[in-house]
Amino acid sequence: MAVRTVPDDGCRDKKRKGEESAWQTCAGSLGSASTMSKSTEGNRFEDFAIGQTIQHAAPRTLTSGDAALYTALTGNRFAINQSAIFARNIGYAQMPLDDLLVFHMVFGMTVADISLNAVANLGYASCRFLMPVAAGDTLRAESEVIGLKEHSNGQTGTVYVRSRAFNQHDAPVLDYVRWVMVRKGGGGRDARASVPSLAEMVAPADFGDSCPPIDRKGWDFAASGSGYRFDDYRIDEKIDHVDGVTVEEAEDMTAARLYHNTARVHYNALAEKSGRFGRRIVYGGHVMSLARALSFNGLQNCFHISAINGGRHAAPLFAGHTVYAWSLIKDKARLSGRDDIGALRIVTRAMRDQPAGDFPVEAAEEGKPGVVLELDYWALIPI
Amino acid sequence: MAVRTVPDDGCRDKKRKGEESAWQTCAGSLGSASTMSKSTEGNRFEDFAIGQTIQHAAPRTLTSGDAALYTALTGNRFAINQSAIFARNIGYAQMPLDDLLVFHMVFGMTVADISLNAVANLGYASCRFLMPVAAGDTLRAESEVIGLKEHSNGQTGTVYVRSRAFNQHDAPVLDYVRWVMVRKGGGGRDARASVPSLAEMVAPADFGDSCPPIDRKGWDFAASGSGYRFDDYRIDEKIDHVDGVTVEEAEDMTAARLYHNTARVHYNALAEKSGRFGRRIVYGGHVMSLARALSFNGLQNCFHISAINGGRHAAPLFAGHTVYAWSLIKDKARLSGRDDIGALRIVTRAMRDQPAGDFPVEAAEEGKPGVVLELDYWALIPI
Amino acid sequence: MAVRTVPDDGCRDKKRKGEESAWQTCAGSLGSASTMSKSTEGNRFEDFAIGQTIQHAAPRTLTSGDAALYTALTGNRFAINQSAIFARNIGYAQMPLDDLLVFHMVFGMTVADISLNAVANLGYASCRFLMPVAAGDTLRAESEVIGLKEHSNGQTGTVYVRSRAFNQHDAPVLDYVRWVMVRKGGGGRDARASVPSLAEMVAPADFGDSCPPIDRKGWDFAASGSGYRFDDYRIDEKIDHVDGVTVEEAEDMTAARLYHNTARVHYNALAEKSGRFGRRIVYGGHVMSLARALSFNGLQNCFHISAINGGRHAAPLFAGHTVYAWSLIKDKARLSGRDDIGALRIVTRAMRDQPAGDFPVEAAEEGKPGVVLELDYWALIPI
Repeated sequence: MAVRTVPDDGCRDKKRKGEESAWQTCAGSLGSASTMSKSTEGNRFEDFAIGQTIQHAAPRTLTSGDAALYTALTGNRFAINQSAIFARNIGYAQMPLDDLLVFHMVFGMTVADISLNAVANLGYASCRFLMPVAAGDTLRAESEVIGLKEHSNGQTGTVYVRSRAFNQHDAPVLDYVRWVMVRKGGGGRDARASVPSLAEMVAPADFGDSCPPIDRKGWDFAASGSGYRFDDYRIDEKIDHVDGVTVEEAEDMTAARLYHNTARVHYNALAEKSGRFGRRIVYGGHVMSLARALSFNGLQNCFHISAINGGRHAAPLFAGHTVYAWSLIKDKARLSGRDDIGALRIVTRAMRDQPAGDFPVEAAEEGKPGVVLELDYWALIPI
Repeated sequence: MAVRTVPDDGCRDKKRKGEESAWQTCAGSLGSASTMSKSTEGNRFEDFAIGQTIQHAAPRTLTSGDAALYTALTGNRFAINQSAIFARNIGYAQMPLDDLLVFHMVFGMTVADISLNAVANLGYASCRFLMPVAAGDTLRAESEVIGLKEHSNGQTGTVYVRSRAFNQHDAPVLDYVRWVMVRKGGGGRDARASVPSLAEMVAPADFGDSCPPIDRKGWDFAASGSGYRFDDYRIDEKIDHVDGVTVEEAEDMTAARLYHNTARVHYNALAEKSGRFGRRIVYGGHVMSLARALSFNGLQNCFHISAINGGRHAAPLFAGHTVYAWSLIKDKARLSGRDDIGALRIVTRAMRDQPAGDFPVEAAEEGKPGVVLELDYWALIPI
Repeated sequence: MAVRTVPDDGCRDKKRKGEESAWQTCAGSLGSASTMSKSTEGNRFEDFAIGQTIQHAAPRTLTSGDAALYTALTGNRFAINQSAIFARNIGYAQMPLDDLLVFHMVFGMTVADISLNAVANLGYASCRFLMPVAAGDTLRAESEVIGLKEHSNGQTGTVYVRSRAFNQHDAPVLDYVRWVMVRKGGGGRDARASVPSLAEMVAPADFGDSCPPIDRKGWDFAASGSGYRFDDYRIDEKIDHVDGVTVEEAEDMTAARLYHNTARVHYNALAEKSGRFGRRIVYGGHVMSLARALSFNGLQNCFHISAINGGRHAAPLFAGHTVYAWSLIKDKARLSGRDDIGALRIVTRAMRDQPAGDFPVEAAEEGKPGVVLELDYWALIPI
């Protein structure tokens, strides 16, 4: 396991590492041994330091049970994640798990350390899916703090982390940056601002070998649901994904628990009664998954998300809302050394309670329909 | 894969097959290349032609995850689907998946092509379960249009299809006819009426080898939950299945997504607000599964559905309803060449919000309790 | 399979065993053959006799699908149940299933025979987890009636059973006593009182080999989420588990069905409308699981429940409630011959709609927040 570095305050980490004298050493600030809490209320802005690396708890062995639940929660129909034979016929050693299932599982590992008390998850960038993940693989995750910015209100700050996930062979499978608004704890730390510069997009040259060579002769276009390939899509083309899907509170809770995403805003209706919206909000990642699942109707052969350039939750989604989605083909790229597949840069927007026929771009305002998600990503598709 | 035949209009199929010139050829009717939609709103009555065969998308590798979800959604307790040891002891090579789980998975594959915009699923007939399906098997499906009938209102028509599913060895595992009321698209096609003649029931001689030889010595009647066998059931016997089970919206959505049943009437609360009932209706197949699961209390040793003679959804089921069921033993049959098992012809009725003690037969009327399902099937049971 | 003994009335059991002449013999009391019900309304107080042993139906092969659902329903994050590598590194041959998942699966098997019509599940005691259970294992269960006490109201009685579960090698994996309030059927049986004496706790000497030798060098304290070990916990220490989790009706129904817990109070909203509370109550075992999952925040290294000394449902939990929990370290024990692990005796209390910061002990009163569960158990933790 990677070494944890603790640049400015070792106390909490000593607690986690179980060093002999941890509670004595820290007792001054943490209370007497018998009353010192073994539990955590989650980190505050002051608990983070640039360069700090956190090993997250609860590595996960992903299973076909997780995959079945993911299908049941999202309606994902991409053939590559549904049929082991389809996957094998196009060149995969094993049927890969849905890319966003992998993303959520890793994201969930980071929540208890990074965003348990997040006010808002502000964005994602530079997300790369580096290797296929299959049932049976075990993932672990770590996050490095790469930026901090205190807000002028003195109540909150933004924390930037780069999170990385590795499989059981210590091979990197996922790598992304996210930034999140975190409450201050009232500590006296000086205002700091160290905001990382983030690329506007992931360059196709940086995709890595996120999929094996694809055997296009083995690709069954009836099974995948469409005959459209790389050359059939045009830059600036807009696709209405037509269908809508309604979200229930119980489904979001089931998803949040499956992903270990224990953030209060999703998990705790009582606390959220007095929160910003008076109720729980749906996990933003669940919205991403619903939008991706809806996008099957029009993007059937976009079999793999190789990178997420950016994700923005334009407005919250609540239980009872019906989600629609449409996509813009923003760019296209041939990949160096590969004549099997190309990449489409896609911006998918998801709306609440608004069909996609008019290709809406306005964020939903309070109590009204509109865009809730903009997801800018690269998807691979056979040439 | 089987050949797709396209008797009367190749355009949509060319799109799906990805033939080089597809969008050019079809551009006249479908819009210019850059605005032509890659997505589909589902087929209308005019899109179907007698003899047309459609290969459905998204073959599925069924897993123990799907089986666990099926139990969690239905409460199925039949020992053969719950214990690998029970299944092996009676003669199965592997624990078979619940017959209706297989049915729903195959049904779901057909929805996007056949019934996405269905007004109503009118009925099933001639359904045969031809081979056991186990976790790890991969199923694909195709449907042949075998009947069409335009309605006098000019708005809708009935489409009859025979759907077939095959496993990874191309062996047929399921075969059934269903008919569904589909909207017209406003096209000028002439009124046609070609209604297939459907058998009133599946003859026991046509069951095929849907189960292996059953070792009755290996049958553990304590494990299966009852000692009643073939000879213990009498024609005209009625069985109150006693228990009731309440359905929630989230459960039906979870089931619909697991089965890829994206039909609007189940999936989209917003669209259904202005629909026939002002709300989503529960997938009829889910009602079938709940009734079958309830029937465990009285039919514990009816380990396998070999055929469904007919199914009729007498009234819709909505979330919040409690489902009860009772069964009539309509007939009994010895099977040629088999002294291990016999078949019971069972008519199971499911009610909404009405216990089964009085063996009700009246369909539920608007806003009232009553029968919602009549399912006429053959179940196998040890002699 | 173990022999079923039927001390006082063989009729029902003959029915279940399928003996040739069962229905004839019993016809006098059960009606004519053609109308005799094959289904059961569940046992009444008069149906039980001291010494009677019941083999329960529906043995279960537990799978990774069940494990995924359990995580999705409870949010369990203990590393030993989430990562096959973590489990192997500390000495397990296979990743064990969560102890309470095993408990619920076995409990569910007993419901149809013991508590289908229970008025209340009164308590548990002397529960021992005797061996790890992994995906692929098949469990069966039996219960012995060990106590009976008629209530002075003449309407109900308490039934005490010792339930035992065995794996596919007939090795015992779980053993517990529960007592439940059951309705009388109006039969004329004399009042009896044979109340078993139950130990106040399971002695650590009786844990058996419920876990393999633990390799503490292989224990990754970053992966498990905390560095606290046996010596870090003090008797009388209180731990606020901080987080709250909200329960929905659909989740409890999903859990109940997964566990085959068909008891009316959980399953049937229509019947419960006229029940004690006017609505369904959440399965008490689900509350236990939620409390255990919440206790991860503070008890991260308590990797295994070896015994439950007692469980009491102080008040019902309903859908919509948010569950919080806190734990008292009631005792500590070194285990004879083991220098790898020790045991903490923990009393975890779960509250509805009340955070745990004040360590509440008062049972919830009607319509108010408060304690709903007291669970007194031994958990193993590395030294």
